Amino acid sequence: MSDIQANSVFSVFDAKMMGKALQLARRGVFSTTPNPHVGCIITNAQNQVVGEGFHKKAGQGHAEVQALQQAKANAVGATAYVTLEPCAHYGRTPPCAQALIDAKIKKVFIACIDPNFQVRGKGIAMLTQAGIEVSIGLMQESALALNKTFFFSLQHKRPFISVKLAASLDGKTALASGESKWITGPLARADVQKHRASACAILTGADTVIHDDPQLNVRIAELPADISEQFLWREQQPLRVIIDSANRLSAIKYKICNDGHATLVYNAVKNEALNYKEGGACWQKQVPIIEKKGRQFVDLHAVLSDLHTMGINHLWVEAGEKLTGALFDLELVDELILYQAPKILGSAARGLTRATSKNSLQQAMVGKVTSLSLLGPDTKTIIEFSH
Amino acid sequence: MSDIQANSVFSVFDAKMMGKALQLARRGVFSTTPNPHVGCIITNAQNQVVGEGFHKKAGQGHAEVQALQQAKANAVGATAYVTLEPCAHYGRTPPCAQALIDAKIKKVFIACIDPNFQVRGKGIAMLTQAGIEVSIGLMQESALALNKTFFFSLQHKRPFISVKLAASLDGKTALASGESKWITGPLARADVQKHRASACAILTGADTVIHDDPQLNVRIAELPADISEQFLWREQQPLRVIIDSANRLSAIKYKICNDGHATLVYNAVKNEALNYKEGGACWQKQVPIIEKKGRQFVDLHAVLSDLHTMGINHLWVEAGEKLTGALFDLELVDELILYQAPKILGSAARGLTRATSKNSLQQAMVGKVTSLSLLGPDTKTIIEFSH
Repeated sequence: MSDIQANSVFSVFDAKMMGKALQLARRGVFSTTPNPHVGCIITNAQNQVVGEGFHKKAGQGHAEVQALQQAKANAVGATAYVTLEPCAHYGRTPPCAQALIDAKIKKVFIACIDPNFQVRGKGIAMLTQAGIEVSIGLMQESALALNKTFFFSLQHKRPFISVKLAASLDGKTALASGESKWITGPLARADVQKHRASACAILTGADTVIHDDPQLNVRIAELPADISEQFLWREQQPLRVIIDSANRLSAIKYKICNDGHATLVYNAVKNEALNYKEGGACWQKQVPIIEKKGRQFVDLHAVLSDLHTMGINHLWVEAGEKLTGALFDLELVDELILYQAPKILGSAARGLTRATSKNSLQQAMVGKVTSLSLLGPDTKTIIEFSH
Repeated sequence: MSDIQANSVFSVFDAKMMGKALQLARRGVFSTTPNPHVGCIITNAQNQVVGEGFHKKAGQGHAEVQALQQAKANAVGATAYVTLEPCAHYGRTPPCAQALIDAKIKKVFIACIDPNFQVRGKGIAMLTQAGIEVSIGLMQESALALNKTFFFSLQHKRPFISVKLAASLDGKTALASGESKWITGPLARADVQKHRASACAILTGADTVIHDDPQLNVRIAELPADISEQFLWREQQPLRVIIDSANRLSAIKYKICNDGHATLVYNAVKNEALNYKEGGACWQKQVPIIEKKGRQFVDLHAVLSDLHTMGINHLWVEAGEKLTGALFDLELVDELILYQAPKILGSAARGLTRATSKNSLQQAMVGKVTSLSLLGPDTKTIIEFSH
C-alpha cells in the first residue's frame, strides 16, 4: 500500500472513534462471509457520535450506509470513521463513497485501503474529488488484522488456511486404535466451536468422515450468548468440504452428508454412489488428480481455487494426519491452531501430521507463535506460517 | 503438617519481612545442594531490619546464624523471620534454634515446618520451651514451593525428577538422521542452563553420550550475571549421571568422562573399559538389572535410591526417547519441561518419548500445566505429574 501515503496526524479522539468503529466491525466476524468485516462511526462538530453501523451480512447494508441512516441530517458537515476504504462500485448495494458524498460528510478517516486492486484507491479518489478531506492509516494494523483472511484470499486467489490439531504432549492425536475422544478438555473444544463459527468453510478428508463420522458444524448452544447471536445472523452453517480422492464415501450414511447443511465433496471421478441432486445440500465436484508415490490425489490447489471462486476466504481444517501432511507439504498451511493436553499417549499412538520429513533442520518448515494461552488444563498455541 | 497448627494472624509488616526472607533464601537456589534454601530476617522493636542472612553452601553458616551475626546485640528482644523451621540438631553447624535462644530473640515467625520426620517440630519445641513466641505458616506455600525438590526427596526417598525435552510442533526431537542442533533457539537453550545450574545432578543415557557426545555441564558464561555469581558459590558442576545398561561406553573418548568434572556411570556389571580410579572424576557403580521384553536394563529405582543417599534431591534429565520413555513408564517423571519450536519436522523424525502406548485415553498419563511462556520464538511449558 505504498502508493497511497498514510497520514499520521491523528488526535486521541480520532483514535477512540476508530477503535469504536473496529469494535463495531468485529460484531460481523461470524456473519459477513464472503464480505469483509467493516464498522463506521459518524461524529458531529461537537464530537458527539451521531451515527454508527457495521456490516452484518452479505446483501445487507454496508457499515457506512447503516451509520448514515442513523445520522440523517446530522451527517452534514460531520466526520466519518471507517475501518475499510468505502466502496466505489455498484454491487449488491450502491457505492458507499457516493453515499458519504450525498450525505455531505466533511471528513473521512479510513483505517486501511481496500487491497482489491480493482477497487483500491477508487473510493478515496471519489471522496477527494468531491472535496471531502480524507485521512488514511489510523489503526491500520488492527484493521488489516481484522480482515486478515479476506485480504489474504484476495491476494493469493485461495482461502487462508487454518489447520486445527489437538494433541498430547508427545504430539499424538489419537491412540493407535483411533480413539481420540477426547484428548483435550471442554474449554478447548468450546474454543474450536468459535473458530468454526468464524470460518467460511470447514475442510476434512474422507478418512475422518469414515472413521469418526463427525458433524463438523457449529454447535450454536455451545457458543457464548453474544457469539451465538452474531453467528445466527449468518443464517447458515459453514460449508463442509470433503476431499475424497478415491471415492471412498459410498452412501448417505454419514452425518455430514445427511443433516440438511451444505457439504461439498471433491473427487477426481464422479462418485455415482453419492447420488445427490446438483445444488442440493450435499454435492460433489470433480477436479484434476495428481500422482504422488504411485497414489492419486485430487489437486488441492485446484480445490482451493474453486473454493476461492465460491467466496471461501477462510478455510478451517480438521483433518487426519494424511490431509494435514499434504497441506504442510504443499506449504498451504497459513496458520496452525494447536491445542495440547498435558498427557502422554505413548509412542505407538497416531502422529500429528504425515508431513514429509526434512533432510536437515535448515529445511524445516518454520512458523511464528502469535498467541499462547491456557484453556482449562490445555494449552492453545497459534503459529503462523508465511510461505 | 496437620499436627502443628498454623497461626494465621499476621500483619502486613510480617508478610513483607517474610517476603524479604524468601527473597534472600532464593539467592541460595544454585548453591545449597544438598541442603534446602533458607533465608532469615531479624527486626527490632522499631520494625527496623537489624540482621539478614541466607544459607549459601553446605558446611557454611545457616541463615539464622548469618542474620544473628549481623544483628549482634540488637538481637535481644528482636523478631526473627525464618523461611524454614530452625534446626535442632548438631550437624555440620550447631542447632539454629539454640542460637536464636542464646541471642535472646523474643519472637520467631516460621514459614514452614521441616518435613523431615526426625527434625520436624523439634526446633519449634526448643524455641517455645525457652519461652520464645513462635508463629507458623506465614507464606507457607511459597516456602514449600521454594524447596519443593528437597521436601519431595525427603518424602519419597528418591530425587525429584525434571525431564527436559526440546521438540518441534509435531513432537519430534531430532531428524531421522539424529540431527537435533538446534531445534530451539538461543533463549530456550540459555534457559536450560539455568535449570541445569539449579539441579543437583544431570541424568542421561549411554545412547545420548555415544551419539551426541554432550558436555551436560553448566556454561557459566551463558548464565545471567547474578546467577553465575550464585552458581560459583557452589564450587562444582552438577554431577553427571549416565545409565549404561549394556556397557556400551568404552573409553575416555567422551567429553563427559574427560573434563575433570564428576560423572557417575551406572551399569549392571563393572565395565573394565571404563578404568577410572574409584573416587575419581568419572566412576561407575553397579546396580541390579531388570529384564523387559527380553532386554536387560539397570533398575532405575535402585539408581534413584542410590542418588538419594548421595544427597541428590533434584535430578535434571536430558536423555533420548528410550530413557525418557522408561521414566514415564515407571511413573518417575515428576515434572516435564517442554520447549517447543514453531517448526514441523515431518513424520519420520524422532519422537519425543518411547513411553508405552495406552489402550484407552482413560489410561493416559495426565499432568498439570503449571507454567506457560514464550522464549523468543519458542514456547516453554512446565507440566507437573503426581503419581
